[in-house]
Amino acid sequence: MARRTGRRPGNQDTREVILTAARAAFADKGFDGASIRAIATAAEVDPALVHHYFGTKDKLFLAAMQAPMDPAELLDAVAEGDLDQVGERFVRLFLTIWDGPGGAAGVALLRSAVGNEWTTRLFREFVVTQILRRAVPKLGLDDEQGPLRITLAASHMVGVAMARYVIKVEPLASVPSETIVAIVGPTVQRYLMDPLPDQSTSPPSVVR
Amino acid sequence: MARRTGRRPGNQDTREVILTAARAAFADKGFDGASIRAIATAAEVDPALVHHYFGTKDKLFLAAMQAPMDPAELLDAVAEGDLDQVGERFVRLFLTIWDGPGGAAGVALLRSAVGNEWTTRLFREFVVTQILRRAVPKLGLDDEQGPLRITLAASHMVGVAMARYVIKVEPLASVPSETIVAIVGPTVQRYLMDPLPDQSTSPPSVVR
Repeated sequence: MARRTGRRPGNQDTREVILTAARAAFADKGFDGASIRAIATAAEVDPALVHHYFGTKDKLFLAAMQAPMDPAELLDAVAEGDLDQVGERFVRLFLTIWDGPGGAAGVALLRSAVGNEWTTRLFREFVVTQILRRAVPKLGLDDEQGPLRITLAASHMVGVAMARYVIKVEPLASVPSETIVAIVGPTVQRYLMDPLPDQSTSPPSVVR
Repeated sequence: MARRTGRRPGNQDTREVILTAARAAFADKGFDGASIRAIATAAEVDPALVHHYFGTKDKLFLAAMQAPMDPAELLDAVAEGDLDQVGERFVRLFLTIWDGPGGAAGVALLRSAVGNEWTTRLFREFVVTQILRRAVPKLGLDDEQGPLRITLAASHMVGVAMARYVIKVEPLASVPSETIVAIVGPTVQRYLMDPLPDQSTSPPSVVR
């Protein structure tokens, strides 16, 4: 994926050098621990150039991950509107991105996510800082249950993406996206918004 | 993962040679198209030796995949008992396997599944022939909706495995397994056994 040549002066090469340094920094120190200044030093460029190319640290992270979409924009679109249909909107938007031109980038991201310990750590940082940390307040969830709700919903969607776009198991791989929206949307809605069962005292059927 | 040395006479080496030939055959020709005879020929051993080491073609496939469990046994355990609790039993058993000594093999299997096109094809064959094909009759599902039901439920569990055991996103990574059983069990139950919505005419809320 990284295009490397012997020369360095071209813009494209400088961008790649910065992105490579950024991936290493985010994986080693985490999103919060990695600074634009340190990344610039590692890439042997001026920090201003990093800002010039990529804007914020969030945007640099998205570029480093080659993310198919900006989770912040996705979350904005999902949070806007009737809270009773958050699940449906989330699943529909997710599938729209994956069924579209962003799908290939999504598959590459997932493959990379499980490639090795290093890329897995990078992906975990991405999920925690770009999705989880934002989704809890954006959807008005409380800090105690919110993270579990979001990770359950996200894990379901990762599973659907794995089955439909990576492993391509039929019929899930070619069923219309609205079929999945109709079945999985209510599940995501339930995970995000309905009362969670107290598994220590109540039977599982409470949640249905 | 494959241990290769220069010599061949030892049993361990012969097993590995057979498993390597089996992986190639299952990936290239699919489970049904790959014969024990052809695998034996590729491994330069007698077919009787393949049977001696691995038993049936199903068992050879499981060994080639280094599967943490035999899906046939898992399905037997899930199908046995009250059909109202199939989802709960399925999730509990799945998590018991992954939380136990089989977990490392499961992670390796998932990593391998998305490693490249070749290993992905092998994993898809595994899912289709060892899980999907058996689960539909075992759970008494009809041929029309059964495959979608199973792939939806399986995709959810793959997503949980990805989040909990591979990417290790908190709090899902360390929450007690019974918490997941209580929340995800009813979802799997619904996917497997409840009426599916007709997404072309009904609103998604029908399924809740």
